[in-house]
Amino acid sequence: MARPTKPQVAFQGELGAFSHAAARQFFGEEVQVTPCATFVQVFDALKCNAVTHAVIPIENTLHGSVHENYDHLLAYGLPIVGETTLRISHQLIAMPGTRFKDISRVLSHPVALNQCLHFFEKHPSIERVPHYDTAGSVKTLSIERTPHSAAIASRAAAEIYGGIILKRDIEDDRQNFTRFFLLSHHVPKVMAGKSSGWKTSLVFATPNKPGSLFKAIACFALRDLNLTKIESRPLRGSPWEYMFYVDLIGHSEEDAVAHALRNLQEITSFLKVFGSYQPTP
Amino acid sequence: MARPTKPQVAFQGELGAFSHAAARQFFGEEVQVTPCATFVQVFDALKCNAVTHAVIPIENTLHGSVHENYDHLLAYGLPIVGETTLRISHQLIAMPGTRFKDISRVLSHPVALNQCLHFFEKHPSIERVPHYDTAGSVKTLSIERTPHSAAIASRAAAEIYGGIILKRDIEDDRQNFTRFFLLSHHVPKVMAGKSSGWKTSLVFATPNKPGSLFKAIACFALRDLNLTKIESRPLRGSPWEYMFYVDLIGHSEEDAVAHALRNLQEITSFLKVFGSYQPTP
Repeated sequence: MARPTKPQVAFQGELGAFSHAAARQFFGEEVQVTPCATFVQVFDALKCNAVTHAVIPIENTLHGSVHENYDHLLAYGLPIVGETTLRISHQLIAMPGTRFKDISRVLSHPVALNQCLHFFEKHPSIERVPHYDTAGSVKTLSIERTPHSAAIASRAAAEIYGGIILKRDIEDDRQNFTRFFLLSHHVPKVMAGKSSGWKTSLVFATPNKPGSLFKAIACFALRDLNLTKIESRPLRGSPWEYMFYVDLIGHSEEDAVAHALRNLQEITSFLKVFGSYQPTP
Repeated sequence: MARPTKPQVAFQGELGAFSHAAARQFFGEEVQVTPCATFVQVFDALKCNAVTHAVIPIENTLHGSVHENYDHLLAYGLPIVGETTLRISHQLIAMPGTRFKDISRVLSHPVALNQCLHFFEKHPSIERVPHYDTAGSVKTLSIERTPHSAAIASRAAAEIYGGIILKRDIEDDRQNFTRFFLLSHHVPKVMAGKSSGWKTSLVFATPNKPGSLFKAIACFALRDLNLTKIESRPLRGSPWEYMFYVDLIGHSEEDAVAHALRNLQEITSFLKVFGSYQPTP
Protein backbone atom coordinates (compact mmCIF):
# COMPACT_ATOMS: atom_id res chain seq x y z
CA MET A 1 0.00 0.00 0.00
CA ALA A 2 1.28 3.46 -0.89
CA ARG A 3 2.16 5.58 2.13
CA PRO A 4 0.27 8.83 2.30
CA THR A 5 2.34 11.73 0.95
CA LYS A 6 3.56 14.22 3.55
CA PRO A 7 1.71 17.50 3.20
CA GLN A 8 3.54 20.22 1.28
CA VAL A 9 1.70 23.53 1.66
CA ALA A 10 1.86 26.58 -0.62
CA PHE A 11 1.04 30.04 0.77
CA GLN A 12 1.57 33.66 -0.22
CA GLY A 13 4.30 35.53 1.62
CA GLU A 14 7.67 34.87 3.19
CA LEU A 15 8.44 32.06 5.66
CA GLY A 16 6.89 33.17 8.95
CA ALA A 17 3.94 34.97 7.30
CA PHE A 18 0.56 34.66 9.02
CA SER A 19 -0.46 32.19 6.28
CA HIS A 20 2.54 30.08 7.35
CA ALA A 21 1.26 30.20 10.95
CA ALA A 22 -2.15 29.05 9.61
CA ALA A 23 -0.47 26.13 7.77
CA ARG A 24 1.12 25.13 11.11
CA GLN A 25 -2.28 25.32 12.77
CA PHE A 26 -3.53 22.75 10.20
CA PHE A 27 -0.53 20.39 10.13
CA GLY A 28 1.75 21.15 13.10
CA GLU A 29 4.98 23.12 13.52
CA GLU A 30 7.07 20.92 11.24
CA VAL A 31 4.86 21.22 8.15
CA GLN A 32 6.78 21.54 4.88
CA VAL A 33 5.89 24.73 3.04
CA THR A 34 6.34 26.45 -0.30
CA PRO A 35 6.28 30.25 0.06
CA CYS A 36 4.97 32.03 -3.08
CA ALA A 37 5.15 35.68 -4.15
CA THR A 38 1.50 35.94 -5.27
CA PHE A 39 -1.86 34.24 -4.74
CA VAL A 40 -1.87 33.20 -8.42
CA GLN A 41 1.39 31.32 -7.80
CA VAL A 42 -0.21 29.60 -4.78
CA PHE A 43 -3.18 28.40 -6.87
CA ASP A 44 -0.88 27.39 -9.77
CA ALA A 45 1.35 25.37 -7.42
CA LEU A 46 -1.63 23.34 -6.21
CA LYS A 47 -3.20 23.04 -9.66
CA CYS A 48 -0.05 21.46 -11.15
CA ASN A 49 0.54 19.27 -8.06
CA ALA A 50 3.80 20.97 -7.05
CA VAL A 51 2.23 20.95 -3.54
CA THR A 52 -0.44 18.82 -1.85
CA HIS A 53 -2.24 21.75 -0.18
CA ALA A 54 -2.62 25.50 -0.32
CA VAL A 55 -3.52 27.92 2.50
CA ILE A 56 -5.22 31.20 1.57
CA PRO A 57 -6.64 34.06 3.69
CA ILE A 58 -10.32 34.59 2.85
CA GLU A 59 -11.49 37.27 5.27
CA ASN A 60 -10.28 39.50 8.07
CA THR A 61 -12.34 41.03 10.87
CA LEU A 62 -10.97 44.53 10.14
CA HIS A 63 -10.39 44.43 6.38
CA GLY A 64 -13.22 42.26 5.06
CA SER A 65 -13.23 39.54 2.43
CA VAL A 66 -10.26 38.85 0.16
CA HIS A 67 -12.26 38.98 -3.08
CA GLU A 68 -9.16 38.19 -5.11
CA ASN A 69 -9.08 34.72 -3.53
CA TYR A 70 -12.81 34.19 -4.09
CA ASP A 71 -12.11 34.98 -7.77
CA HIS A 72 -9.28 32.42 -7.85
CA LEU A 73 -11.48 29.80 -6.11
CA LEU A 74 -13.98 30.22 -8.95
CA ALA A 75 -11.39 30.33 -11.75
CA TYR A 76 -9.32 27.34 -10.56
CA GLY A 77 -12.12 25.17 -9.16
CA LEU A 78 -9.84 23.85 -6.39
CA PRO A 79 -11.89 22.49 -3.48
CA ILE A 80 -11.87 23.87 0.05
CA VAL A 81 -11.07 21.04 2.47
CA GLY A 82 -10.40 22.92 5.70
CA GLU A 83 -10.79 26.18 7.58
CA THR A 84 -9.00 27.82 10.48
CA THR A 85 -8.94 31.22 12.17
CA LEU A 86 -5.84 32.98 13.46
CA ARG A 87 -5.58 35.98 15.75
CA ILE A 88 -3.31 38.51 14.07
CA SER A 89 -1.01 39.66 16.85
CA HIS A 90 2.07 41.75 16.20
CA GLN A 91 5.42 41.24 17.94
CA LEU A 92 8.31 43.69 18.09
CA ILE A 93 11.24 41.56 16.98
CA ALA A 94 14.99 42.28 16.91
CA MET A 95 18.14 40.26 16.38
CA PRO A 96 19.80 38.87 19.55
CA GLY A 97 21.91 41.47 21.36
CA THR A 98 19.67 44.39 20.42
CA ARG A 99 18.14 46.09 23.46
CA PHE A 100 14.79 47.85 23.29
CA LYS A 101 16.29 51.19 24.34
CA ASP A 102 18.64 51.08 21.32
CA ILE A 103 15.82 50.75 18.77
CA SER A 104 15.46 53.81 16.54
CA ARG A 105 13.65 52.30 13.53
CA VAL A 106 11.04 49.62 13.00
CA LEU A 107 10.46 47.84 9.69
CA SER A 108 7.16 46.26 8.66
CA HIS A 109 4.37 46.24 6.09
CA PRO A 110 2.54 49.62 6.31
CA VAL A 111 -0.72 47.86 7.23
CA ALA A 112 1.00 46.27 10.26
CA LEU A 113 2.70 49.58 11.19
CA ASN A 114 -0.74 51.22 11.12
CA GLN A 115 -2.15 48.51 13.38
CA CYS A 116 0.38 49.42 16.11
CA LEU A 117 -0.21 53.19 16.35
CA HIS A 118 -0.47 53.18 20.18
CA PHE A 119 3.03 51.69 20.36
CA PHE A 120 4.45 54.42 18.09
CA GLU A 121 2.59 57.15 19.99
CA LYS A 122 4.19 55.88 23.19
CA HIS A 123 7.63 55.83 21.53
CA PRO A 124 7.60 58.87 19.22
CA SER A 125 11.35 58.82 18.57
CA ILE A 126 11.10 55.46 16.80
CA GLU A 127 10.93 55.79 13.01
CA ARG A 128 8.45 53.66 11.02
CA VAL A 129 10.10 52.11 7.96
CA PRO A 130 7.67 50.62 5.42
CA HIS A 131 8.68 47.20 4.10
CA TYR A 132 7.18 44.80 1.51
CA ASP A 133 6.09 42.13 4.02
CA THR A 134 5.79 41.58 7.80
CA ALA A 135 7.82 38.35 7.97
CA GLY A 136 10.08 39.77 5.24
CA SER A 137 11.04 42.60 7.58
CA VAL A 138 12.47 40.09 10.09
CA LYS A 139 14.18 38.25 7.23
CA THR A 140 15.79 41.54 6.16
CA LEU A 141 17.00 42.23 9.74
CA SER A 142 18.50 38.75 9.93
CA ILE A 143 20.42 39.25 6.67
CA GLU A 144 21.47 42.89 6.93
CA ARG A 145 22.00 43.04 10.71
CA THR A 146 21.31 46.80 10.59
CA PRO A 147 21.93 48.22 14.09
CA HIS A 148 19.20 49.99 16.13
CA SER A 149 16.52 48.24 14.06
CA ALA A 150 13.54 46.05 14.87
CA ALA A 151 10.63 44.59 12.90
CA ILE A 152 6.93 43.98 13.48
CA ALA A 153 5.78 40.49 12.53
CA SER A 154 4.37 37.19 13.83
CA ARG A 155 5.80 34.94 16.54
CA ALA A 156 6.57 32.40 13.79
CA ALA A 157 8.72 34.98 11.96
CA ALA A 158 10.75 35.65 15.12
CA GLU A 159 11.42 31.96 15.55
CA ILE A 160 12.21 31.19 11.90
CA TYR A 161 14.73 34.00 11.45
CA GLY A 162 16.30 33.69 14.91
CA GLY A 163 14.85 36.95 16.21
CA ILE A 164 13.93 37.73 19.80
CA ILE A 165 10.63 39.30 20.82
CA LEU A 166 11.26 42.61 22.63
CA LYS A 167 7.57 43.56 23.08
CA ARG A 168 4.64 41.19 22.81
CA ASP A 169 1.24 41.83 21.19
CA ILE A 170 1.71 45.52 20.38
CA GLU A 171 -1.33 45.66 18.05
CA ASP A 172 -3.98 48.30 18.89
CA ASP A 173 -6.97 46.05 18.28
CA ARG A 174 -7.09 42.59 19.83
CA GLN A 175 -10.10 41.74 17.64
CA ASN A 176 -7.99 41.26 14.53
CA PHE A 177 -8.66 37.76 13.18
CA THR A 178 -8.02 36.25 9.77
CA ARG A 179 -9.90 33.23 8.49
CA PHE A 180 -7.97 30.88 6.20
CA PHE A 181 -9.11 28.16 3.81
CA LEU A 182 -7.14 24.97 3.18
CA LEU A 183 -7.36 23.75 -0.44
CA SER A 184 -6.46 20.31 -1.78
CA HIS A 185 -7.34 17.81 -4.50
CA HIS A 186 -7.79 15.27 -1.70
CA VAL A 187 -11.32 15.87 -0.50
CA PRO A 188 -12.10 14.42 2.94
CA LYS A 189 -14.94 11.89 2.97
CA VAL A 190 -17.78 11.98 5.47
CA MET A 191 -17.87 8.85 7.62
CA ALA A 192 -21.32 7.24 7.59
CA GLY A 193 -23.48 8.89 10.23
CA LYS A 194 -20.75 11.41 11.15
CA SER A 195 -21.90 14.49 9.34
CA SER A 196 -21.89 16.87 12.29
CA GLY A 197 -19.34 19.67 12.60
CA TRP A 198 -19.13 20.34 8.85
CA LYS A 199 -19.44 23.62 7.02
CA THR A 200 -20.07 24.22 3.32
CA SER A 201 -19.05 27.28 1.29
CA LEU A 202 -20.71 28.23 -1.97
CA VAL A 203 -21.35 31.06 -4.38
CA PHE A 204 -24.44 31.77 -6.45
CA ALA A 205 -25.72 34.49 -8.75
CA THR A 206 -29.33 35.59 -8.84
CA PRO A 207 -31.23 36.72 -11.92
CA ASN A 208 -32.17 40.40 -12.04
CA LYS A 209 -35.69 39.91 -10.64
CA PRO A 210 -37.31 41.36 -7.52
CA GLY A 211 -37.19 39.01 -4.55
CA SER A 212 -34.39 36.80 -5.98
CA LEU A 213 -32.29 36.93 -2.82
CA PHE A 214 -35.34 36.32 -0.64
CA LYS A 215 -36.13 33.14 -2.59
CA ALA A 216 -32.50 32.01 -2.38
CA ILE A 217 -32.39 32.48 1.40
CA ALA A 218 -35.73 30.66 1.61
CA CYS A 219 -34.07 27.50 0.18
CA PHE A 220 -31.99 27.36 3.38
CA ALA A 221 -34.57 28.71 5.85
CA LEU A 222 -37.24 26.19 4.76
CA ARG A 223 -34.86 23.41 5.77
CA ASP A 224 -33.74 25.04 9.04
CA LEU A 225 -30.17 25.36 7.77
CA ASN A 226 -28.01 27.92 9.56
CA LEU A 227 -25.96 30.39 7.51
CA THR A 228 -22.70 31.59 9.07
CA LYS A 229 -21.90 34.06 6.28
CA ILE A 230 -23.67 35.90 3.50
CA GLU A 231 -22.05 38.57 1.39
CA SER A 232 -23.23 40.16 -1.83
CA ARG A 233 -20.82 41.19 -4.55
CA PRO A 234 -21.85 43.11 -7.65
CA LEU A 235 -21.32 41.08 -10.85
CA ARG A 236 -18.68 42.68 -13.06
CA GLY A 237 -20.22 44.46 -16.01
CA SER A 238 -23.77 43.53 -14.94
CA PRO A 239 -25.28 46.26 -12.82
CA TRP A 240 -28.16 44.94 -10.71
CA GLU A 241 -26.88 41.39 -10.83
CA TYR A 242 -25.06 40.02 -7.82
CA MET A 243 -23.05 37.07 -6.69
CA PHE A 244 -23.58 35.91 -3.12
CA TYR A 245 -21.02 34.12 -1.00
CA VAL A 246 -22.68 31.85 1.54
CA ASP A 247 -21.30 29.59 4.28
CA LEU A 248 -23.67 27.20 6.04
CA ILE A 249 -23.57 24.56 8.73
CA GLY A 250 -23.73 21.08 7.20
CA HIS A 251 -22.10 18.88 4.55
CA SER A 252 -23.14 19.25 0.91
CA GLU A 253 -24.01 15.54 0.81
CA GLU A 254 -26.30 15.72 3.85
CA ASP A 255 -29.96 15.38 2.83
CA ALA A 256 -31.15 18.82 3.95
CA VAL A 257 -28.17 20.59 2.35
CA ALA A 258 -28.40 18.54 -0.86
CA HIS A 259 -32.11 19.38 -1.16
CA ALA A 260 -31.44 23.08 -0.50
CA LEU A 261 -28.74 23.12 -3.18
CA ARG A 262 -31.05 21.45 -5.74
CA ASN A 263 -33.72 24.00 -4.86
CA LEU A 264 -31.18 26.83 -5.18
CA GLN A 265 -30.08 25.53 -8.59
CA GLU A 266 -33.67 25.96 -9.85
CA ILE A 267 -33.85 29.64 -8.97
CA THR A 268 -30.29 30.95 -9.45
CA SER A 269 -28.49 31.75 -12.69
CA PHE A 270 -25.25 30.27 -11.37
CA LEU A 271 -24.27 28.03 -8.46
CA LYS A 272 -20.91 26.60 -7.42
CA VAL A 273 -20.12 24.70 -4.21
CA PHE A 274 -16.53 25.46 -3.12
CA GLY A 275 -16.40 22.53 -0.72
CA SER A 276 -17.40 21.04 2.63
CA TYR A 277 -14.92 20.99 5.50
CA GLN A 278 -14.48 20.63 9.25
CA PRO A 279 -13.04 23.74 10.94
CA THR A 280 -9.67 23.33 12.70
CA PRO A 281 -9.71 25.22 16.02
CA MET B 1 -29.23 85.43 5.29
CA ALA B 2 -26.10 83.48 6.23
CA ARG B 3 -24.13 82.30 3.21
CA PRO B 4 -23.61 78.54 3.13
CA THR B 5 -20.16 77.58 4.44
CA LYS B 6 -17.68 76.34 1.85
CA PRO B 7 -17.13 72.61 2.21
CA GLN B 8 -13.98 71.59 4.09
CA VAL B 9 -13.41 67.84 3.71
CA ALA B 10 -11.39 65.54 5.96
CA PHE B 11 -9.95 62.28 4.57
CA GLN B 12 -7.30 59.74 5.57
CA GLY B 13 -4.02 59.93 3.65
CA GLU B 14 -1.77 62.49 2.02
CA LEU B 15 -2.91 65.17 -0.44
CA GLY B 16 -3.52 63.31 -3.72
CA ALA B 17 -4.73 60.11 -2.02
CA PHE B 18 -7.63 58.28 -3.69
CA SER B 19 -9.90 59.64 -0.92
CA HIS B 20 -8.84 63.14 -2.03
CA ALA B 21 -9.83 62.25 -5.61
CA ALA B 22 -13.21 61.08 -4.21
CA ALA B 23 -13.63 64.41 -2.39
CA ARG B 24 -13.03 66.17 -5.73
CA GLN B 25 -15.65 63.94 -7.35
CA PHE B 26 -18.16 65.22 -4.74
CA PHE B 27 -17.23 68.94 -4.71
CA GLY B 28 -14.99 69.70 -7.73
CA GLU B 29 -11.24 70.11 -8.19
CA GLU B 30 -10.90 73.14 -5.93
CA VAL B 31 -12.40 71.55 -2.81
CA GLN B 32 -10.65 72.49 0.43
CA VAL B 33 -9.37 69.44 2.26
CA THR B 34 -7.92 68.37 5.60
CA PRO B 35 -5.66 65.32 5.21
CA CYS B 36 -5.57 63.12 8.35
CA ALA B 37 -3.19 60.36 9.41
CA THR B 38 -5.89 57.93 10.59
CA PHE B 39 -9.60 57.22 10.11
CA VAL B 40 -10.18 58.06 13.80
CA GLN B 41 -8.76 61.53 13.15
CA VAL B 42 -11.13 61.91 10.16
CA PHE B 43 -14.17 61.05 12.29
CA ASP B 44 -12.92 63.26 15.15
CA ALA B 45 -12.44 66.22 12.77
CA LEU B 46 -16.06 66.00 11.62
CA LYS B 47 -17.42 65.30 15.10
CA CYS B 48 -15.88 68.47 16.55
CA ASN B 49 -16.80 70.55 13.46
CA ALA B 50 -13.19 71.18 12.40
CA VAL B 51 -14.50 70.24 8.93
CA THR B 52 -17.95 70.27 7.28
CA HIS B 53 -17.61 66.86 5.62
CA ALA B 54 -15.60 63.65 5.74
CA VAL B 55 -14.88 61.18 2.94
CA ILE B 56 -14.20 57.55 3.88
CA PRO B 57 -13.61 54.41 1.77
CA ILE B 58 -16.19 51.75 2.66
CA GLU B 59 -15.51 48.89 0.22
CA ASN B 60 -13.22 47.85 -2.60
CA THR B 61 -13.97 45.36 -5.39
CA LEU B 62 -10.72 43.43 -4.69
CA HIS B 63 -10.28 43.90 -0.95
CA GLY B 64 -13.82 43.88 0.44
CA SER B 65 -15.45 46.05 3.08
CA VAL B 66 -13.50 48.42 5.31
CA HIS B 67 -14.93 47.10 8.58
CA GLU B 68 -12.94 49.65 10.57
CA ASN B 69 -15.02 52.42 9.01
CA TYR B 70 -18.30 50.56 9.62
CA ASP B 71 -17.21 50.39 13.29
CA HIS B 72 -16.53 54.15 13.34
CA LEU B 73 -19.91 54.87 11.66
CA LEU B 74 -21.58 53.01 14.53
CA ALA B 75 -19.43 54.53 17.29
CA TYR B 76 -19.63 58.16 16.08
CA GLY B 77 -23.20 58.15 14.73
CA LEU B 78 -22.23 60.58 11.94
CA PRO B 79 -24.74 60.39 9.07
CA ILE B 80 -23.93 59.29 5.52
CA VAL B 81 -25.08 62.01 3.10
CA GLY B 82 -23.43 60.91 -0.14
CA GLU B 83 -21.77 58.07 -2.04
CA THR B 84 -19.39 57.85 -4.96
CA THR B 85 -17.30 55.19 -6.67
CA LEU B 86 -13.79 55.68 -8.01
CA ARG B 87 -11.80 53.45 -10.33
CA ILE B 88 -8.41 52.85 -8.71
CA SER B 89 -5.93 53.33 -11.54
CA HIS B 90 -2.21 53.54 -10.93
CA GLN B 91 0.11 55.99 -12.72
CA LEU B 92 3.88 55.79 -12.93
CA ILE B 93 4.93 59.27 -11.84
CA ALA B 94 8.33 60.99 -11.83
CA MET B 95 9.63 64.51 -11.35
CA PRO B 96 10.05 66.60 -14.53
CA GLY B 97 13.28 65.82 -16.36
CA THR B 98 13.30 62.14 -15.41
CA ARG B 99 13.08 59.84 -18.45
CA PHE B 100 11.48 56.40 -18.24
CA LYS B 101 14.69 54.64 -19.31
CA ASP B 102 16.53 56.19 -16.35
CA ILE B 103 14.14 54.76 -13.75
CA SER B 104 15.75 52.12 -11.53
CA ARG B 105 13.43 52.23 -8.47
CA VAL B 106 9.74 52.79 -7.91
CA LEU B 107 8.25 53.86 -4.58
CA SER B 108 4.69 53.09 -3.49
CA HIS B 109 2.51 51.43 -0.86
CA PRO B 110 3.11 47.63 -1.08
CA VAL B 111 -0.56 47.04 -1.94
CA ALA B 112 -0.22 49.33 -5.00
CA LEU B 113 3.13 47.74 -5.96
CA ASN B 114 1.42 44.34 -5.85
CA GLN B 115 -1.40 45.62 -8.08
CA CYS B 116 1.12 46.43 -10.84
CA LEU B 117 2.94 43.08 -11.11
CA HIS B 118 2.67 42.92 -14.92
CA PHE B 119 4.54 46.21 -15.15
CA PHE B 120 7.35 44.93 -12.91
CA GLU B 121 7.52 41.62 -14.80
CA LYS B 122 7.97 43.57 -18.02
CA HIS B 123 10.69 45.72 -16.41
CA PRO B 124 12.54 43.30 -14.12
CA SER B 125 15.50 45.63 -13.52
CA ILE B 126 13.27 48.15 -11.72
CA GLU B 127 13.41 47.82 -7.94
CA ARG B 128 10.18 48.01 -5.90
CA VAL B 129 10.59 50.27 -2.86
CA PRO B 130 7.80 49.98 -0.26
CA HIS B 131 6.54 53.31 1.03
CA TYR B 132 3.95 54.31 3.65
CA ASP B 133 1.41 55.76 1.18
CA THR B 134 0.76 55.98 -2.59
CA ALA B 135 0.40 59.77 -2.77
CA GLY B 136 3.09 60.05 -0.09
CA SER B 137 5.55 58.36 -2.46
CA VAL B 138 5.11 61.23 -4.98
CA LYS B 139 5.39 63.75 -2.14
CA THR B 140 8.69 62.13 -1.10
CA LEU B 141 10.02 62.29 -4.70
CA SER B 142 9.08 65.96 -4.91
CA ILE B 143 10.95 66.75 -1.67
CA GLU B 144 13.99 64.51 -1.95
CA ARG B 145 14.44 64.67 -5.75
CA THR B 146 16.19 61.28 -5.63
CA PRO B 147 17.49 60.51 -9.14
CA HIS B 148 16.39 57.45 -11.16
CA SER B 149 13.23 57.21 -9.05
CA ALA B 150 9.52 57.13 -9.80
CA ALA B 151 6.36 56.52 -7.76
CA ILE B 152 3.04 54.75 -8.29
CA ALA B 153 0.01 56.83 -7.31
CA SER B 154 -3.13 58.57 -8.58
CA ARG B 155 -3.44 61.21 -11.30
CA ALA B 156 -4.31 63.71 -8.55
CA ALA B 157 -1.00 62.99 -6.76
CA ALA B 158 0.97 63.67 -9.97
CA GLU B 159 -0.76 67.00 -10.38
CA ILE B 160 -0.55 68.12 -6.73
CA TYR B 161 3.18 67.43 -6.33
CA GLY B 162 4.18 68.62 -9.83
CA GLY B 163 5.00 65.15 -11.12
CA ILE B 164 4.67 63.93 -14.70
CA ILE B 165 3.01 60.68 -15.67
CA LEU B 166 5.49 58.43 -17.50
CA LYS B 167 3.15 55.43 -17.90
CA ARG B 168 -0.61 55.53 -17.57
CA ASP B 169 -2.89 52.95 -15.93
CA ILE B 170 -0.27 50.32 -15.13
CA GLU B 171 -2.55 48.36 -12.77
CA ASP B 172 -3.06 44.66 -13.57
CA ASP B 173 -6.80 44.63 -12.91
CA ARG B 174 -9.03 47.31 -14.43
CA GLN B 175 -11.89 46.14 -12.18
CA ASN B 176 -10.46 47.81 -9.09
CA PHE B 177 -13.09 50.18 -7.71
CA THR B 178 -13.45 51.79 -4.30
CA ARG B 179 -16.78 53.03 -2.98
CA PHE B 180 -16.65 56.09 -0.70
CA PHE B 181 -19.18 57.57 1.72
CA LEU B 182 -19.57 61.29 2.32
CA LEU B 183 -20.42 62.15 5.94
CA SER B 184 -21.80 65.42 7.30
CA HIS B 185 -23.97 66.88 10.04
CA HIS B 186 -25.95 68.61 7.25
CA VAL B 187 -28.40 65.95 6.11
CA PRO B 188 -29.96 66.60 2.69
CA LYS B 189 -33.76 66.87 2.73
CA VAL B 190 -36.01 65.06 0.27
CA MET B 191 -38.09 67.50 -1.79
CA ALA B 192 -41.79 66.61 -1.68
CA GLY B 193 -42.51 63.96 -4.33
CA LYS B 194 -38.82 63.70 -5.33
CA SER B 195 -37.77 60.55 -3.54
CA SER B 196 -36.36 58.66 -6.53
CA GLY B 197 -32.63 58.01 -6.88
CA TRP B 198 -31.98 57.59 -3.14
CA LYS B 199 -30.19 54.82 -1.32
CA THR B 200 -30.26 53.98 2.38
CA SER B 201 -27.55 52.19 4.38
CA LEU B 202 -28.24 50.45 7.67
CA VAL B 203 -26.97 47.83 10.07
CA PHE B 204 -28.95 45.39 12.18
CA ALA B 205 -28.26 42.46 14.48
CA THR B 206 -30.44 39.38 14.63
CA PRO B 207 -31.19 37.34 17.74
CA ASN B 208 -29.68 33.87 17.84
CA LYS B 209 -32.79 32.09 16.51
CA PRO B 210 -33.23 29.94 13.40
CA GLY B 211 -34.61 31.85 10.44
CA SER B 212 -33.73 35.33 11.84
CA LEU B 213 -32.03 36.48 8.65
CA PHE B 214 -34.86 35.09 6.51
CA LYS B 215 -37.38 37.13 8.48
CA ALA B 216 -35.24 40.25 8.23
CA ILE B 217 -34.91 39.91 4.45
CA ALA B 218 -38.68 39.32 4.30
CA CYS B 219 -39.26 42.83 5.72
CA PHE B 220 -37.77 44.20 2.50
CA ALA B 221 -39.01 41.55 0.05
CA LEU B 222 -42.65 41.88 1.20
CA ARG B 223 -42.47 45.56 0.17
CA ASP B 224 -40.66 44.92 -3.14
CA LEU B 225 -37.62 46.86 -1.91
CA ASN B 226 -34.36 46.16 -3.74
CA LEU B 227 -31.21 45.47 -1.74
CA THR B 228 -27.92 46.50 -3.35
CA LYS B 229 -25.73 45.08 -0.59
CA ILE B 230 -25.96 42.56 2.20
CA GLU B 231 -23.02 41.44 4.28
CA SER B 232 -22.92 39.48 7.51
CA ARG B 233 -20.35 40.16 10.17
CA PRO B 234 -19.93 38.03 13.28
CA LEU B 235 -20.68 40.00 16.47
CA ARG B 236 -17.59 40.36 18.63
CA GLY B 237 -17.69 38.05 21.60
CA SER B 238 -21.07 36.59 20.61
CA PRO B 239 -20.61 33.50 18.49
CA TRP B 240 -23.73 32.72 16.43
CA GLU B 241 -24.90 36.32 16.53
CA TYR B 242 -24.35 38.49 13.53
CA MET B 243 -24.59 42.06 12.39
CA PHE B 244 -25.80 42.63 8.83
CA TYR B 245 -24.88 45.61 6.68
CA VAL B 246 -27.65 46.37 4.17
CA ASP B 247 -27.96 48.97 1.41
CA LEU B 248 -31.31 49.40 -0.29
CA ILE B 249 -32.90 51.54 -2.98
CA GLY B 250 -35.13 54.20 -1.41
CA HIS B 251 -35.15 56.95 1.21
CA SER B 252 -35.70 56.05 4.86
CA GLU B 253 -38.66 58.45 4.99
CA GLU B 254 -40.41 56.89 1.99
CA ASP B 255 -43.49 54.90 3.06
CA ALA B 256 -42.34 51.46 1.95
CA VAL B 257 -38.87 51.90 3.49
CA ALA B 258 -40.24 53.40 6.72
CA HIS B 259 -42.67 50.45 7.07
CA ALA B 260 -39.90 47.94 6.38
CA LEU B 261 -37.69 49.58 9.02
CA ARG B 262 -40.50 49.50 11.62
CA ASN B 263 -41.06 45.84 10.77
CA LEU B 264 -37.32 45.16 11.04
CA GLN B 265 -37.20 46.88 14.43
CA GLU B 266 -39.74 44.34 15.75
CA ILE B 267 -37.66 41.31 14.85
CA THR B 268 -34.05 42.48 15.29
CA SER B 269 -32.07 42.96 18.50
CA PHE B 270 -30.42 46.12 17.14
CA LEU B 271 -31.09 48.48 14.22
CA LYS B 272 -29.30 51.64 13.12
CA VAL B 273 -29.90 53.62 9.92
CA PHE B 274 -26.61 55.21 8.76
CA GLY B 275 -28.35 57.60 6.37
CA SER B 276 -30.09 58.15 3.03
CA TYR B 277 -28.19 59.69 0.14
CA GLN B 278 -28.13 60.21 -3.62
CA PRO B 279 -25.11 58.61 -5.34
CA THR B 280 -22.71 60.98 -7.16
CA PRO B 281 -21.63 59.45 -10.47
